Amino acid sequence: MLATIIHGPRDIRTAEVDAPTIQKPTDAVVRVTASCICGSDLWPYRGVQETKQSHPIGHEFVGIVEEVGDEVTTLQPGQFVIAPFVVSDGTCVNCRNGVQTSCLHGGAWGADDRDGLPVQGGQSARIRVPWADGTLVATDEVPAEELVPSLLTLSDVMGTGHHAAVSAGVGPGKTVAVVGDGAVGLCAVLAAKRLGAERVVLFSRHESRQALGREFGADTIIEERGDAGVDAVRALFDGVGPDCVLECVGTKESMDQALRSVRPGGFVGYVGVPSGGAELPIRLMFGGNINVAGGVAPVRTYIPELLPDVLSGAINPGRVFDLTLPLAEVADGYTAMDERRAIKVLLQP
Amino acid sequence: MLATIIHGPRDIRTAEVDAPTIQKPTDAVVRVTASCICGSDLWPYRGVQETKQSHPIGHEFVGIVEEVGDEVTTLQPGQFVIAPFVVSDGTCVNCRNGVQTSCLHGGAWGADDRDGLPVQGGQSARIRVPWADGTLVATDEVPAEELVPSLLTLSDVMGTGHHAAVSAGVGPGKTVAVVGDGAVGLCAVLAAKRLGAERVVLFSRHESRQALGREFGADTIIEERGDAGVDAVRALFDGVGPDCVLECVGTKESMDQALRSVRPGGFVGYVGVPSGGAELPIRLMFGGNINVAGGVAPVRTYIPELLPDVLSGAINPGRVFDLTLPLAEVADGYTAMDERRAIKVLLQP
Repeated sequence: MLATIIHGPRDIRTAEVDAPTIQKPTDAVVRVTASCICGSDLWPYRGVQETKQSHPIGHEFVGIVEEVGDEVTTLQPGQFVIAPFVVSDGTCVNCRNGVQTSCLHGGAWGADDRDGLPVQGGQSARIRVPWADGTLVATDEVPAEELVPSLLTLSDVMGTGHHAAVSAGVGPGKTVAVVGDGAVGLCAVLAAKRLGAERVVLFSRHESRQALGREFGADTIIEERGDAGVDAVRALFDGVGPDCVLECVGTKESMDQALRSVRPGGFVGYVGVPSGGAELPIRLMFGGNINVAGGVAPVRTYIPELLPDVLSGAINPGRVFDLTLPLAEVADGYTAMDERRAIKVLLQP
Repeated sequence: MLATIIHGPRDIRTAEVDAPTIQKPTDAVVRVTASCICGSDLWPYRGVQETKQSHPIGHEFVGIVEEVGDEVTTLQPGQFVIAPFVVSDGTCVNCRNGVQTSCLHGGAWGADDRDGLPVQGGQSARIRVPWADGTLVATDEVPAEELVPSLLTLSDVMGTGHHAAVSAGVGPGKTVAVVGDGAVGLCAVLAAKRLGAERVVLFSRHESRQALGREFGADTIIEERGDAGVDAVRALFDGVGPDCVLECVGTKESMDQALRSVRPGGFVGYVGVPSGGAELPIRLMFGGNINVAGGVAPVRTYIPELLPDVLSGAINPGRVFDLTLPLAEVADGYTAMDERRAIKVLLQP
């Protein structure tokens, strides 16, 4: 079967590999019907994050259960499932606390599990899923084809944008600014509106992303960055800034934009994977009572809440996919995202 | 009248100065009946924070209103008032948001106001209070003498401990650890119990502070610090740590203890004035979904909530005062706190 392997900076290729089989009684094997490329996959692609040895890549997928181990109780072959971007057992204390990203027995796609058995990357044709009961969420029926892109976003970007909004305390009456116009930032706009935000502002300089941001509910776009961006957003909100800022990039510059844009006593909900050496400036935070909440999104927690709105069409986060390619052309997908020609690339078998 | 002036490291003396008078129609003049020394006053006392020129010091006091300006509507001479540790107008957007520490027209005790008119320090016999309606909270009656120490803590340490607990989301069923056994840390224990915490652990190595911590509701004391402290607190809470950690010191070491002690997905509520060059380690926070909330406590917001419990005797935070001196002997009070012979020193006229 086909699997995507990263060998080093700008060297991502598919290869023919052995199809996975059940290794443990808690496993399932899933045939991937759609996967995608994440903004965070660009860090190793660009060499910002080192690739020490070749390994399978990808961590967002949906598919059909092909086989389950003897101890799997909630899934059966033929079901459509959504895979969160990490593996989790669903039973440890951190999973019970809703922080499946810190599962005591969990793991990552594309890496060996804790017993040294390989797990395929998300950008593959078939995947062995450890802790299948804990990890996967099945839908009642196999959904219509047109719903698949939005369902796929529940494996990462929609849940991640939602995590930024929830962490920042977004709700009715709250004012919100979103830093980052990638797929996560756009989903954060959608999540903030869904949670009842009174007004949502999106920092964006790209016309196509601005348009999708407006479609997702952004009331105002700010093109300025840095000091000018801070001035612009403060001017919109009583001279002090919005209640909540959602940081969806992860660079020092974007976090600085977020911390300086939020009002005193407000919350920065952050989900951008930290890149570079940025630490948080505690004196700035202390003096203004700027709260910082979020982190790597435990999207597994959010799928049950978000799924009905996707199935009903109330939200359509799959609109972030603006390029669809066959898995065999995955390298072109990375190039398109790297060059910002595509917001997010969907891969089909 | 007598006022306390800091001239430089370990050089704090009282001086005879002119008594203040009403300068603006929004002023009040208050005769101080009790003030105190703050842990943060020790930073300039020790020279950790530079004193560029001599200035009045102190920012916690209660007293009797002697005179009010023509535009003051909520106060009258003879009333007993509690002064939060900053001045605030009570009407700007930040004050309306409950963040009076970021008042757009506020200021500090012991410094000139925004029109260049002097404001006395809290460790003085009489003080001109700008924005008296916004800043001060009056009690219905002049309280009994034995309640004064606890009422005085509402000007800073009790409200600050409460801010740590509120910021960390302490409430019924929550597990809590407190880093710092100074007056603020001890008040944070009391605040956490008052808010319904299920279990409260205090990090402390000092016998007298441990005893007061237990009196305030700490269920367990941990004497270890660093890795051993982290191991000890994790062992108490499912191997992962408590839901909430209240950071009440402000050093790199104490924040590190807090961030490493809290469970994944938990909250560090922090109120320790940051000292040294500590920034927050965002990767550690991101990976474990460690949320950091708090800052310089807007105690003005909390006085109306805490005051009834002090007046009824339900809480007795004034127990943090273990040394009382006349204002004329304020220098001895600084020495006692610096040498950790006293937790907190109360000053009487």
